[in-house]
Amino acid sequence: MSSLVDATKLLTSPGIFGIFSTYRMRPSYYLDLSKEERASAVDEVSRVTEEFNDKVLIQGYLTAGLCHSSDFLIRVHCEDLTDGQSFLMSLKKTKFGVHSEVIETLIGITKSLNYITKSKSQSLNEALGATVYSTEAPRYAIVIPIKKNAQWWNLSDLERTNMIEGHTRPTLPYLVNVKRKLYHATGLSDVDFITYFETNDLTAFNNLIIALASVPENTFHVRYGNPTTLGLISVSLADVVRQLS
Amino acid sequence: MSSLVDATKLLTSPGIFGIFSTYRMRPSYYLDLSKEERASAVDEVSRVTEEFNDKVLIQGYLTAGLCHSSDFLIRVHCEDLTDGQSFLMSLKKTKFGVHSEVIETLIGITKSLNYITKSKSQSLNEALGATVYSTEAPRYAIVIPIKKNAQWWNLSDLERTNMIEGHTRPTLPYLVNVKRKLYHATGLSDVDFITYFETNDLTAFNNLIIALASVPENTFHVRYGNPTTLGLISVSLADVVRQLS
Amino acid sequence: MSSLVDATKLLTSPGIFGIFSTYRMRPSYYLDLSKEERASAVDEVSRVTEEFNDKVLIQGYLTAGLCHSSDFLIRVHCEDLTDGQSFLMSLKKTKFGVHSEVIETLIGITKSLNYITKSKSQSLNEALGATVYSTEAPRYAIVIPIKKNAQWWNLSDLERTNMIEGHTRPTLPYLVNVKRKLYHATGLSDVDFITYFETNDLTAFNNLIIALASVPENTFHVRYGNPTTLGLISVSLADVVRQLS
Amino acid sequence: MSSLVDATKLLTSPGIFGIFSTYRMRPSYYLDLSKEERASAVDEVSRVTEEFNDKVLIQGYLTAGLCHSSDFLIRVHCEDLTDGQSFLMSLKKTKFGVHSEVIETLIGITKSLNYITKSKSQSLNEALGATVYSTEAPRYAIVIPIKKNAQWWNLSDLERTNMIEGHTRPTLPYLVNVKRKLYHATGLSDVDFITYFETNDLTAFNNLIIALASVPENTFHVRYGNPTTLGLISVSLADVVRQLS
Amino acid sequence: MSSLVDATKLLTSPGIFGIFSTYRMRPSYYLDLSKEERASAVDEVSRVTEEFNDKVLIQGYLTAGLCHSSDFLIRVHCEDLTDGQSFLMSLKKTKFGVHSEVIETLIGITKSLNYITKSKSQSLNEALGATVYSTEAPRYAIVIPIKKNAQWWNLSDLERTNMIEGHTRPTLPYLVNVKRKLYHATGLSDVDFITYFETNDLTAFNNLIIALASVPENTFHVRYGNPTTLGLISVSLADVVRQLS
Repeated sequence: MSSLVDATKLLTSPGIFGIFSTYRMRPSYYLDLSKEERASAVDEVSRVTEEFNDKVLIQGYLTAGLCHSSDFLIRVHCEDLTDGQSFLMSLKKTKFGVHSEVIETLIGITKSLNYITKSKSQSLNEALGATVYSTEAPRYAIVIPIKKNAQWWNLSDLERTNMIEGHTRPTLPYLVNVKRKLYHATGLSDVDFITYFETNDLTAFNNLIIALASVPENTFHVRYGNPTTLGLISVSLADVVRQLS
Repeated sequence: MSSLVDATKLLTSPGIFGIFSTYRMRPSYYLDLSKEERASAVDEVSRVTEEFNDKVLIQGYLTAGLCHSSDFLIRVHCEDLTDGQSFLMSLKKTKFGVHSEVIETLIGITKSLNYITKSKSQSLNEALGATVYSTEAPRYAIVIPIKKNAQWWNLSDLERTNMIEGHTRPTLPYLVNVKRKLYHATGLSDVDFITYFETNDLTAFNNLIIALASVPENTFHVRYGNPTTLGLISVSLADVVRQLS
Repeated sequence: MSSLVDATKLLTSPGIFGIFSTYRMRPSYYLDLSKEERASAVDEVSRVTEEFNDKVLIQGYLTAGLCHSSDFLIRVHCEDLTDGQSFLMSLKKTKFGVHSEVIETLIGITKSLNYITKSKSQSLNEALGATVYSTEAPRYAIVIPIKKNAQWWNLSDLERTNMIEGHTRPTLPYLVNVKRKLYHATGLSDVDFITYFETNDLTAFNNLIIALASVPENTFHVRYGNPTTLGLISVSLADVVRQLS
Repeated sequence: MSSLVDATKLLTSPGIFGIFSTYRMRPSYYLDLSKEERASAVDEVSRVTEEFNDKVLIQGYLTAGLCHSSDFLIRVHCEDLTDGQSFLMSLKKTKFGVHSEVIETLIGITKSLNYITKSKSQSLNEALGATVYSTEAPRYAIVIPIKKNAQWWNLSDLERTNMIEGHTRPTLPYLVNVKRKLYHATGLSDVDFITYFETNDLTAFNNLIIALASVPENTFHVRYGNPTTLGLISVSLADVVRQLS
Repeated sequence: MSSLVDATKLLTSPGIFGIFSTYRMRPSYYLDLSKEERASAVDEVSRVTEEFNDKVLIQGYLTAGLCHSSDFLIRVHCEDLTDGQSFLMSLKKTKFGVHSEVIETLIGITKSLNYITKSKSQSLNEALGATVYSTEAPRYAIVIPIKKNAQWWNLSDLERTNMIEGHTRPTLPYLVNVKRKLYHATGLSDVDFITYFETNDLTAFNNLIIALASVPENTFHVRYGNPTTLGLISVSLADVVRQLS
């Protein structure tokens, strides 16, 4: 019996792949399957996730009622991208998967900090480390894909560092109630970054995103969201499937 | 037996979530269900709305014949967003819900006034309070989602206040026959604001929106409408379902 | 027995609503219904239009073969918008309606002239009245929705009048063979204007639209057409249905 | 028995309508019809085209495998647009037509040359006439719809003539292996021009379009292709249907 | 028995057509066919690819789980484009093909180098030849379609050469772990270039594409990806079909 994947390592190390995939239920799931068949579909998804949980970390989010383009979101972390692909292909062949439609799949890689490092921006680097999330456990996750324009990438490293410093400062007050994680996607998907947030305070989150909109770095975006995915954090993918079944 | 949600509080307090969700009927609703089945679908929706009316305020609007992208609109107000989500997910599992397709879901939060406050803009603040809607009861509601560009958010607060004053002045003559309500959506959906109007005089409303287009603040919009949703205000969601059944 | 709606009044007065709705036939209409059922669908549409012809003016146009996004267009005029909505909802529930898909619905209001009035632009106002359509009865109608940018609406009234004068002058030679009618849609749909033309001379019409493209006012458009709808004018909506059945 | 339409006249005269319509096969054509039914569908299309070949010129192109948005293209020429519309509506009601989906329909009118005329640009006019297509019979046709911006149409006639001269010069070396034909579509469809090419040398064609991209006139385009349609020229529409059946 | 096509020649010569076609499985493949029928569908695809492997080179890539818009990618090389078209049309008529939907088809031609030639840019030309791919066999392929704007094509050849030199320099360090191949598509599809990459190191690839984004040449792009297609390189198209069946 294989051991579980090391979740902490996958969630904190650089060089890890993150796959963000949203799905919409086809009406056939409700119209053509009986309640019993849908119940067995939940069990089938449980078995598939168990089969892969020694290689990939699988998280599920309920987006139905909060987003129009999807009913649920899966976030997969893996060291080898083919493991994540294999899992999603196995899921796709389940009864639940066949009645789901993939809406968007974005792939990113985690990296060490680029700009707010000890050497480039010491005080901000320390400020980022000085506060930890310490309010109620987050119930919501938000995914905002971002693409920057050619002008951004043609700035010098120093210019970009200055911009990111201006972007980082207004986020400090929100470290206490909004968690953030960044994935680099250039060339892997049609975005440059996948930004992932968790919070229990959506008003604070709204104010944070307004603060991030109000700095010069924001003038270099050609895509910001589209879609913004807001989902309820679930205990497991199987639980997401149960809620939708 | 639980008491009804406090509608006045939900419609006037800051910190309340508003969910705006539009739907289109699938042809299967008419082709695969009998008249009797559609009649029972209405009753099922009534039961679901009753089940939730101690936690969420539910309003329905008929958009069929007035909009191409939807047949009806639901507006939900709630203090806890998960209550609104639970209601919409329960609705989705009804016979009526299964034969409906979600077209757009936008989520906003109510806030106190940002710019036209007593301290920043006293005379306009008083003018806004001096006139109340006093013409025939509104039959129509209009929802216009708005997204502003990075330049807007990079203006100073004073510059934005000046712009919003210029935006507010031409609206004063319409306070008598057009009601307005604003929701803040940055980071929750792919828009910054959801503007909601009620009126019985669509010519006056057309003139109001032209007046709002004719001020400098309008030059900062990257999305205005798209879609604009025009709907007939219904006495209840169940009544909307009845009209479509 | 109720009397027919006053067509002349609806087609010439200000303050009248015009609904322009295009539809595409679903393949199920041909695959799942027999010839007899389709014939009865025509009769059903006739009955529905008769039921409403004391309140709304209903006109039909065949766009199949001329446009890809639609097979037919309905133009409805009414004094009270809910009458138009009721008619379109009744149509939607017929056998023909169930097998049709709404593609675009645009709503406008008629108004008196804004710019080329006796007081603002006397000679052009007279020129517009001096020529009437006098060539062969038009067989074709064209609908071009238009949206102007924020810069347009931020011009002064005098600047816009000058622009519209420049727009109007090249149209004078075409008064003899192209009819025009304008609807104001700002805030009601996602366009500012719905322009409606009738002609029997499509080469003249092509030259007219090129002339309208060649003036400064055209530089303020953010939407022009998209879609342009070209249809064959039919004697009735029932006849459109018959042609498609 | 009626005589065939005069193809040469329709292909060379001004004032002729050209309808370009692309279609995609629905999967139901292959899944729900037997081989025998599909064979009879070919015969039915043959009969419909014969019925109309005294009024319209019908040409077919196979785009499956070369374009994603369509499986075939029909080009129709006619003096009276209603004849073309009648043909396409008759085709739509055949078994083959019911299982096809219209993707794009563009309509243009042929005109005499606007700019490179004897009086405006004599030497180029002569150069255009001096070379004829003289290489292998073309197997491929390409359709590129074009829309120009408001700035183009606001140029003076002389400025536009200069631009078109710059556009025409680099095309002279390709007269020997690429045929061209132009249709004017402003106001009839959402493009200004439909450009139609025939060639047997796709590398030469690629170089020609690069040459056309490399002149100032190209900076005035708001749509160029989208889609570009590349198809195999077929001996008849019935043959296209046979290939797809 | 015919001999196989010369793969090396097709992959290295100028004047070769490359067809890139992506597909999505319809849910009917899983819902309406039994496991046995899907197994026989694999065999049928094998037979079709064998039938054509004396004329076209066929390669398959699994994109399911990595891209939302497709489940697999086919790359076809051929000297005569009609051979590639015939193959794709034959594939489309198989059981597997009927249950697949074409998502995007792009066609390009291979050419000799335009800018980094011995005569124009000697040292870079030599540098490109000095390093060969020498790390682990690539498991992933990435396809990024590119369209440049009118300003690019209106630059002088020298200006474009300078730009491409700036584009080429940062790619030299990646020759060891990323393979590249270029196809010219102007006029054949709605892009100018199809860029094809193979790698086993997706982090290196991400860094390469960031480097390519950070040069002035990148400011001339109007399309870059959209979609970016990331796929797992398969041993054969039949193997792709087997994985999806």
